[in-house]
Amino acid sequence: MTVLSRQEVISFMKLNQFAIAPTSTTTEIEELKRIYFITAATERLTTHRLLHHLLRQSFPETTTQEAADNKIANLLVSKDMDALSLVQMTTPITATMIWNLFLQLLGFQVEADFDLTHPEKLHSTVNLPNFDQSTLTNTDLLHAWYQLLITHTTTGQTFLDQLASHGYYRQLLARNQLPKPLFFNGKAQPVFDTTKLIHEVVYVESPQDTDHDGQRDLLKVEITRPIESNTQSVPTLYTASPYNQGTNDAAGEALTHDVNVPLTVKQPTSNTVTSNTLTHDSNPLPAPRVINGHSDQAEESFGNTFDYSLNDYFLARGFAVVYAAGIGTKESDGLRTTGDPEETTSTIAVIEWLTGKRVAFTNRTANVAIAATWSNHRVAMTGRSYLGTLATAAATTGVEGLKTIICEAGISSWYDYYREGGLVIAPGGFPGEDADVLAEETFSRQQQAGDYARIKATWQRQLDTITRGQDRQNGNYDAFWDQRNYRNQAANIKADVMIVHGLNDWNVKPRNAEKLWRAMTKLPINHKLILHQGPHIYINNFRSLDFTDMVNLWLSHELYDVDNHAETILPDVLVQDNATPETWHPFNDWGADTNNKTTFHFGAQVLSTTNTDDKTYQFEDQLPAKQFDHYAHNISDWQHDLVAASSPLATNRLRLVAPVQTDTLTIDGCPVVHLNVAVNQTIGLISAQLVDLGLFKRLNGLPTTLARQAMDLGDHFKKEDLREYELATKPSPYQLISKGHLNLQNRTHLTQVEAIKPNQFYQTQIELQPTHYRLTPGHQLGLLIYATDFGMTIRGNQAITYTISATNSWLEVPHL
Amino acid sequence: MTVLSRQEVISFMKLNQFAIAPTSTTTEIEELKRIYFITAATERLTTHRLLHHLLRQSFPETTTQEAADNKIANLLVSKDMDALSLVQMTTPITATMIWNLFLQLLGFQVEADFDLTHPEKLHSTVNLPNFDQSTLTNTDLLHAWYQLLITHTTTGQTFLDQLASHGYYRQLLARNQLPKPLFFNGKAQPVFDTTKLIHEVVYVESPQDTDHDGQRDLLKVEITRPIESNTQSVPTLYTASPYNQGTNDAAGEALTHDVNVPLTVKQPTSNTVTSNTLTHDSNPLPAPRVINGHSDQAEESFGNTFDYSLNDYFLARGFAVVYAAGIGTKESDGLRTTGDPEETTSTIAVIEWLTGKRVAFTNRTANVAIAATWSNHRVAMTGRSYLGTLATAAATTGVEGLKTIICEAGISSWYDYYREGGLVIAPGGFPGEDADVLAEETFSRQQQAGDYARIKATWQRQLDTITRGQDRQNGNYDAFWDQRNYRNQAANIKADVMIVHGLNDWNVKPRNAEKLWRAMTKLPINHKLILHQGPHIYINNFRSLDFTDMVNLWLSHELYDVDNHAETILPDVLVQDNATPETWHPFNDWGADTNNKTTFHFGAQVLSTTNTDDKTYQFEDQLPAKQFDHYAHNISDWQHDLVAASSPLATNRLRLVAPVQTDTLTIDGCPVVHLNVAVNQTIGLISAQLVDLGLFKRLNGLPTTLARQAMDLGDHFKKEDLREYELATKPSPYQLISKGHLNLQNRTHLTQVEAIKPNQFYQTQIELQPTHYRLTPGHQLGLLIYATDFGMTIRGNQAITYTISATNSWLEVPHL
Repeated sequence: MTVLSRQEVISFMKLNQFAIAPTSTTTEIEELKRIYFITAATERLTTHRLLHHLLRQSFPETTTQEAADNKIANLLVSKDMDALSLVQMTTPITATMIWNLFLQLLGFQVEADFDLTHPEKLHSTVNLPNFDQSTLTNTDLLHAWYQLLITHTTTGQTFLDQLASHGYYRQLLARNQLPKPLFFNGKAQPVFDTTKLIHEVVYVESPQDTDHDGQRDLLKVEITRPIESNTQSVPTLYTASPYNQGTNDAAGEALTHDVNVPLTVKQPTSNTVTSNTLTHDSNPLPAPRVINGHSDQAEESFGNTFDYSLNDYFLARGFAVVYAAGIGTKESDGLRTTGDPEETTSTIAVIEWLTGKRVAFTNRTANVAIAATWSNHRVAMTGRSYLGTLATAAATTGVEGLKTIICEAGISSWYDYYREGGLVIAPGGFPGEDADVLAEETFSRQQQAGDYARIKATWQRQLDTITRGQDRQNGNYDAFWDQRNYRNQAANIKADVMIVHGLNDWNVKPRNAEKLWRAMTKLPINHKLILHQGPHIYINNFRSLDFTDMVNLWLSHELYDVDNHAETILPDVLVQDNATPETWHPFNDWGADTNNKTTFHFGAQVLSTTNTDDKTYQFEDQLPAKQFDHYAHNISDWQHDLVAASSPLATNRLRLVAPVQTDTLTIDGCPVVHLNVAVNQTIGLISAQLVDLGLFKRLNGLPTTLARQAMDLGDHFKKEDLREYELATKPSPYQLISKGHLNLQNRTHLTQVEAIKPNQFYQTQIELQPTHYRLTPGHQLGLLIYATDFGMTIRGNQAITYTISATNSWLEVPHL
Repeated sequence: MTVLSRQEVISFMKLNQFAIAPTSTTTEIEELKRIYFITAATERLTTHRLLHHLLRQSFPETTTQEAADNKIANLLVSKDMDALSLVQMTTPITATMIWNLFLQLLGFQVEADFDLTHPEKLHSTVNLPNFDQSTLTNTDLLHAWYQLLITHTTTGQTFLDQLASHGYYRQLLARNQLPKPLFFNGKAQPVFDTTKLIHEVVYVESPQDTDHDGQRDLLKVEITRPIESNTQSVPTLYTASPYNQGTNDAAGEALTHDVNVPLTVKQPTSNTVTSNTLTHDSNPLPAPRVINGHSDQAEESFGNTFDYSLNDYFLARGFAVVYAAGIGTKESDGLRTTGDPEETTSTIAVIEWLTGKRVAFTNRTANVAIAATWSNHRVAMTGRSYLGTLATAAATTGVEGLKTIICEAGISSWYDYYREGGLVIAPGGFPGEDADVLAEETFSRQQQAGDYARIKATWQRQLDTITRGQDRQNGNYDAFWDQRNYRNQAANIKADVMIVHGLNDWNVKPRNAEKLWRAMTKLPINHKLILHQGPHIYINNFRSLDFTDMVNLWLSHELYDVDNHAETILPDVLVQDNATPETWHPFNDWGADTNNKTTFHFGAQVLSTTNTDDKTYQFEDQLPAKQFDHYAHNISDWQHDLVAASSPLATNRLRLVAPVQTDTLTIDGCPVVHLNVAVNQTIGLISAQLVDLGLFKRLNGLPTTLARQAMDLGDHFKKEDLREYELATKPSPYQLISKGHLNLQNRTHLTQVEAIKPNQFYQTQIELQPTHYRLTPGHQLGLLIYATDFGMTIRGNQAITYTISATNSWLEVPHL
């Protein structure tokens, strides 16, 4: 009848837990004692009384035995017996009984989800503990309960986290019985007081003056930390978010570039990184401010801001959380640069303050210094998109104290964000966006009229410099982009790195993750990679993956120095399956050079691993004005028609289809399209899409919210929705696997422009975005070769004809 | 580049504030003193120093003058002067300067949103205070600041609420300076300590034994209350939500009825409410439990539950919040009934406990009583859908202590939810749902295996009784439905009522609100009605309407007895405009009998106010199997084709279109389709849709999230997204205005079945759902007459031909 408030869908549910630390039975019992789940006396109870005790502990929302017993009586151990009856009798306790309790406590429903006589059939979902005999000992029971505590419930968190949100630790904390921090199974527990969080603002003085006002830039930093940090030092999760102080959406929109402009001839150059417009700041660096005094009291707090729920989860577990928006944002000094070294310097200035190496002030004018006395000098950076980008930027400086970054959907080179193959290529969904647009959008100093009035002229000059520097007439990899390629400094990385990226992220494309990953494999650091099936999203609230636990294991190790073997327990590469919901596969690497490669030859509308063809095939780029206009305003219609077998775009593309798969092909890495191509003009661009064809139910494009606000981040603290990728209810005709673009004038190098002679064939190749894709039996691999990409390239609608010679054209697919 | 975290879209923004209490200047100053915004000394400052003080108070996130001055310096009073400079000089303070400050403090941006030389141009959005002279006095300034404090910012809350979320009250509370509760401009302020909320569970003993286990039903109640309620009594917001303890979605789905079944002949009956299957409980009521003792300490708390953010907002303001799921839900006794009097009794038992008239226990077995010592015996009910339904049910008992209900999208008669015009009619989006399905879905006792094992057989019998009682073969209004028509007891209502309903709610249809509204106009109670353009949604986070403030004004009056004139300040009827975004119109009534009526005669594909026609027009109901099957699985395709001028359904409907509107027609009330109709069978059903035709940009079907988590419900407490209805970016061909359905066997009465003679003409009428719709110039009114409604009726796909005689058929439209 209504939108249900808490809808728990069990069908298809799978628990994939990668953050479970293998623990000996002895240690399990020690840990259970450490959290007072049992005491030495409990261990000596009869097995029935021990079970009663464990059940009692599993309902911390009750404060009396009788109230708990009411709930215990509602659990069945068999068809004919409830748990309260069992513990009051002498009937032997069997493994099946424990499994039944286990499943009910985790939120599974008797009958609807499992059968009391065969609970083990849910084994594929929940890892039930194994028992050797049918009558259980105390040791068996304690082992079982330890396993229960670290297993995920149906709402995507461990049972122990659920107990904590029901007040388990609250009662112990009231009696001061728990150490802080507290770790269980290697992961930090929510024992810090979230009702007394301290919110404070400081202004870090950075070692540069990017707005040339004669003073070093002050950077506003918003700190949230547990009150316990007044007496014991804590580590910090630092999220550098240029969006955090507001954005100028309308101004950004106004600056967005027209993409309906022609492709023009570029002047040939030698193969070099050209420096066209870079200016270097020749002003001497102003002296630091003279410190007028010191204070341990902040003068400013803050209200509502953007909070990343993963950070909030750690606030309850003994970590401080720090947000800073950086140069050129509201209440900070400086100018936006969209990714240049100045922005990186501003990003790490905050870490330098957190580690005692830089000064911050209580306000912007009094020059009263305030130190991060509460910081244990260990910092992790978190966040997605631009936030993850700046985490990468910071890591490539090797700044001391930055122990790890969790880089989600981050840019590792801005060329791979705004450019590709010598072309201006928009991030998916944002045609016409460029470095200047993003700079304008994030220049939130604009939101304070007084400040903006003083900086406006300087800002306009800066914006002009970025617009000139990005040079939309020239898609080459030049000095502007080289300055914004963090991978140039990859060798400096000292922090351990966890990369998270969506295989369907056409905003920050997977190449950003893959090239960073490849660079890291050469470094003496721990590095992990998680590839999910989403676009540009967060994944910390998926039911099928214990991502938050994984990060907890990782950060407890990195920032609290817990010897929990996170670096070996977590898989190096973890990939969400595209064909089966709620399935994640561990791997050792992604896109390794040692992968197999299969070559598909081009033919008349076919891809073939066996037959070759010596014909040529043509397509035109130009469309009738009306059709062009429709596609320009309805990009999804264009995408549909591009792929459809029978299509109004039939003469505007090559559509090559491989035979129906009889086995599974697991593509892993960058597919490469080798082309022998001629064009009837002195300009040309080629786009290619690799697609999975066939009418099948595939994962939805976005995760479904299974239950609103179902995940607790602490004890009556914040909450998060539970989400998961579901199979679509209807079949779809195709799924995009990968794509790529190339300016034929950059056919040899991104850094070299060559002339095109009309109708002369050139041999070139397009490296498509890296992927990991299981093409299952019944599906067909398809390749589209075309020119204008309505979602990403400029759209000149020019009369250009492309001719592909099949003889020397082929698709190379790396696979497992 | 990314999904922005806080995106503030100003274009089209309009502030509509209906909860502003008109206040004299003297009272304004008293109130400013009461919240310590000023003191007697402040009033005597020079005007410049007073302005400095007011600005200082507007940045409560700062604790020093210097930190505040940093922020004051970032406000401009004119193109060339910032606010800090102004207060330090002797330049006269002008109205324009104050308006400029006003707008900046509310979140509007200089240049992007307004011009410093003409801030008054934003007047249509923000009600700037009026000043008589250009040089301002202290009194002017204080009046201005009072107005500022009660005006909404760009993120949909008052400036004072924003200050509170930045810590304004926190500092005063630390010094114990504020009374609790505290009211400003008639509305309760967030001065209660949300970091120390008490969560407790009690079990109320209700005066019935609906599951016949020989004991009165215990009902689980979850209470959240401010710790201050330990020492001072507080009122309660009570939300009765059957969903609150979980739902059995899969079981409900399994029980959902097949709607692809034929319409069958009903036996003629006399005009009476027949009682076919009702059984009355003849068991004697068990005695109350013997009380074993008393406690003031609950034995159980609770963790994560569904929270309605409107309730959370009031937690910070001195109200307790209580959720109860009622009979047949998890950890309560009894059986689900889908709206019968037993459910109402269970609903009000909680109110009776809150007002000291009923016993609750600390757990389910020990019989230790616990009183609501913290309750001030004043209760309001809140919630949407089933929740609002139960608020209505409770109000119709006249239960003492229930001062008001805020009924959002509530059912006032279950016949109007599952039946219509003698037909089985599904709630929109849920074909095949019925009273039994909902009972099964909400019988959350099923989720506890131990409890379920004991009650299962009883429940199956109850479910069978409901299935028989609802009788899907017979759409008549009979005793089953009469028992579930709360309007029968409307005269008992003593609580004041605020109804909120979506004019596009095809789940709980507007008739539920309208008939309740009409019943209330005869009662000596205060009653208010808000009609929005949404479907089945909450509206407490819209930017364009101060709904939360309105409820605050209302509840401060109802529950804290504040003499704030809420009953006269709030408009009786408030309607969101369908044609212009962010526009709300106050009215005195909805669908009044005194409305004008325009008659549209039927013609060949036309509706005419002038011409009549003496022809007959036919349509068939049956479709080819493939087309039928497609529509059955793609209801939106069916709806599209039903309305489209050129359509595969052209012979399966009459489509009558009025001339293009030259003036605006404001429909208000229930349009009625009068029909002279014959059918070639002994069965027949007629559906009708009234539509607005013409390719125009209309409001989107759902509100857009403008800014995630932008609204603060307290001071570092919970948050809510900011949403608003936006105009679609693309034009749509039509908008549904209203619809209705009739079984031709019920052509005279819902309570009388008459036979149909094939091919005989009958005169009948279909009262469409009530609406309020502005049909603006250029649009055309359209009427669709058809039979099977793929989204709502059963779908027999029978060979039935309908013939309409135009002579005696017409559409009657009530309008302003």
